[in-house]
Amino acid sequence: MLKLYTYFRSSAAYRVRIALNLKGLAFQSIPVHLVRDGGEHLCDGYRTINPNAMLPTLQDDGATLTQSLAILEYLEERVPQPPLLPADALGRARVRALALTVVSDVHPISNLRVLKYLTDTLHVQEEERAAWYKYWVQEGLRMIETHLARDARTGLFCHGDTPSMADCCLVPLVFNARRFNMDLSAYPSIERIHARCIALPAFMAAHPAQQPDAE
Amino acid sequence: MLKLYTYFRSSAAYRVRIALNLKGLAFQSIPVHLVRDGGEHLCDGYRTINPNAMLPTLQDDGATLTQSLAILEYLEERVPQPPLLPADALGRARVRALALTVVSDVHPISNLRVLKYLTDTLHVQEEERAAWYKYWVQEGLRMIETHLARDARTGLFCHGDTPSMADCCLVPLVFNARRFNMDLSAYPSIERIHARCIALPAFMAAHPAQQPDAE
Repeated sequence: MLKLYTYFRSSAAYRVRIALNLKGLAFQSIPVHLVRDGGEHLCDGYRTINPNAMLPTLQDDGATLTQSLAILEYLEERVPQPPLLPADALGRARVRALALTVVSDVHPISNLRVLKYLTDTLHVQEEERAAWYKYWVQEGLRMIETHLARDARTGLFCHGDTPSMADCCLVPLVFNARRFNMDLSAYPSIERIHARCIALPAFMAAHPAQQPDAE
Repeated sequence: MLKLYTYFRSSAAYRVRIALNLKGLAFQSIPVHLVRDGGEHLCDGYRTINPNAMLPTLQDDGATLTQSLAILEYLEERVPQPPLLPADALGRARVRALALTVVSDVHPISNLRVLKYLTDTLHVQEEERAAWYKYWVQEGLRMIETHLARDARTGLFCHGDTPSMADCCLVPLVFNARRFNMDLSAYPSIERIHARCIALPAFMAAHPAQQPDAE
């Protein structure tokens, strides 16, 4: 059985949970609490599994996989159906670029360890910290909306009419934005696609509130 | 002819230049200056090509591709030889995870637009800004060194004895670390692999100092 080291609110783990569900793969969740006791991910036990001390980690029959997007690619190769990448090279490049906009351009900057550095080392006030978070999430949403709105390959989902890796990454981003009460009305393509995604059982079961470690 | 929108010192463009050279693909460099005139990448002209207003962008016969790692995957699919990913799924997942550690866990946080926010919005002092940069680059180097040192699949290069996507991402990171006079002696695997990479013509020709827009 696949084992996923996860935290209910981790965006990166959420992406992988969606992909596992879309592929119809059963997995065992092993919760790693990112806040309690100063962060269980920072303990030696978890570092032995994942020296980056980040979530998620997927274990497949003794093999250990890290980095959400590398895991999504691995799942795609191991279980090709239903595909999370389109059949053509340019389409695949577009889906990967959309996914990377979330994975590289937004998430790392608004991640917990960066927010912690702002507070602990730069002594940034709570208000400025919240503004930082919102600024980078909004930058990301703006970039993605522009891509989606101007490209005819956008369909019911980010690319065409079936969910792809891009949707696996977009939905957790929107979850974060909503959690911080951000107004999404300026991003109609994102709102439309998000609504369609979260109506699907694979996305529903991956939602933070549905996880065994949800608080 | 492939067209690459690039800046000599952009890490992300540097990754793609290395990959293009390894694949033996000729390309035309179109310089986009990230500093002059408040940043040419922020002008409407470039935003029309890449709404993320980031480098690099690759144009291939009318198609526009963004995000360095998505471009690397595209080149790998279009020109399979020499391969920049290993033949086995677990190996590919490892190379992608190493690449993503640079692309997601280090680079976005120490990127120009983030440093600019620190200075312009949070009014962080020059010294604290430099400390921020070094902290995140060192975090990344430490993560990568741990991965490389403990895994028997590490060879003359990050994975085995030929360059992969991971090496395309590692070399620009080391270039940045050296540019800021960071001590790399704590990362012997990285130093060893880096030395081997930069001796190769494909890496040499991709070096910032060799670009038409080098200053």
